[in-house]
Amino acid sequence: MSLRAQGKVFLVGAGPGDPELLTLKALRVLREADVVLHDDLISHEVLGLVPATALKISVGKRCGAARVSQEETNAMLVSYAESGRTVVRLKSGDPMLFGRAGEEIDALRRAGVEFEIVPGISTAFAAAAALETSLTDRRKASRVVFSTGHRAQPGASEGTTQVVYMPGPDYSAIVARLLREGFGQETPCAVVSGVSRESQTTIHATLGSLPNMGSLPAPSILLVGAALADARENVASDQSGLEGFTMRTRATA
Amino acid sequence: MSLRAQGKVFLVGAGPGDPELLTLKALRVLREADVVLHDDLISHEVLGLVPATALKISVGKRCGAARVSQEETNAMLVSYAESGRTVVRLKSGDPMLFGRAGEEIDALRRAGVEFEIVPGISTAFAAAAALETSLTDRRKASRVVFSTGHRAQPGASEGTTQVVYMPGPDYSAIVARLLREGFGQETPCAVVSGVSRESQTTIHATLGSLPNMGSLPAPSILLVGAALADARENVASDQSGLEGFTMRTRATA
Repeated sequence: MSLRAQGKVFLVGAGPGDPELLTLKALRVLREADVVLHDDLISHEVLGLVPATALKISVGKRCGAARVSQEETNAMLVSYAESGRTVVRLKSGDPMLFGRAGEEIDALRRAGVEFEIVPGISTAFAAAAALETSLTDRRKASRVVFSTGHRAQPGASEGTTQVVYMPGPDYSAIVARLLREGFGQETPCAVVSGVSRESQTTIHATLGSLPNMGSLPAPSILLVGAALADARENVASDQSGLEGFTMRTRATA
Repeated sequence: MSLRAQGKVFLVGAGPGDPELLTLKALRVLREADVVLHDDLISHEVLGLVPATALKISVGKRCGAARVSQEETNAMLVSYAESGRTVVRLKSGDPMLFGRAGEEIDALRRAGVEFEIVPGISTAFAAAAALETSLTDRRKASRVVFSTGHRAQPGASEGTTQVVYMPGPDYSAIVARLLREGFGQETPCAVVSGVSRESQTTIHATLGSLPNMGSLPAPSILLVGAALADARENVASDQSGLEGFTMRTRATA
């Protein structure tokens, strides 16, 4: 344990799950950690890189139920740093997207605790890699929208790839939103569950057929737009037998 | 050189410039490369990780002028792979965003060449890390839009962080577009040039004051939205002396 007069907090992106998708900097910082506060969905392989001497605390929430409140997490970050520890706050994907980092940064600033942010591969990019589909394409999409939840942005469909993080088990509300935004029933889309992990599973569908589909286990991500058309062709031979979509797992990819 | 009956192409994200922001997988693949076809804006430090025995070819364009056409790049990827080489196509940031990977993937598929995509840290995330500002925040922004160019998406401003890649030297057209989309003159924004590099420079401004500002050297990125308000506070003491915005370089950060 590296005790200093004042510790430091690193907000670190763990990427989507495959430990090889950590950055070199994330690995270095993780290996120097005295305390690691991590999300629930960090993969076992990534957690395995934390030194055995470090204190590991799961502060994530699963299905909306937080075992540790955001305020408690903020307080732990501050107090471990003030006691001289090197603290890693390990977040799925990139820490600056849908991760409530803003509240943690506010708490660290208020307490005068030194901190640094280490980017990670956000799930959308690893999903696009798995789908072998560029999120943008001169010919099809010039914008990418990252969102969660159900609030519609009318007219936001043209030339756009929509990426919905954490779509949850019921696609109906999200599909309704995307139809309101101007996407058509036939717009190609893909759901990727367990991106970059052994469990990685992909479902290819049209927007209209998505609500009829069973949901995939968390963590998952939904990608929608003309740019996904090529991803579909890629698995045309691997029919799931269910009308309107195809499925493959990483093992069969 | 690892000669095989058939080579393979890796489309690899080089991240924003700092070699520590490469993924472990990108570094491994880069070290196994026989041929590296790289963008112009890849940092010297990252290119320094390519084995001395590998053939390095710059295929990027600078200021829109391509020294090597996209068709020539596609043809080189295919022919080096067909001659049994391990080929890395090294792209700034992540390969699946604004990188014309779609055209390269099409060419590889047509030729039946095996390929794999290795994600990289896209500049937006490293810029957010440098600015110590989350791109989303429950209290301010629930969507992030990544775009290039000037086409407006009316009504796209509410609760949104806009990230404009490669804004170019003249901000007037982009600012006009963002005002049409509903952002106000007072919306906080930041331009980060040379993200994660020694040369990293940040300008904090309001949208209205941005066109009065000198441009920063490429590569740069523009971030706009309420979520940027906290990034500004962060450098309030470091006035550039020019009205309406503040500037800092990495050395003074």
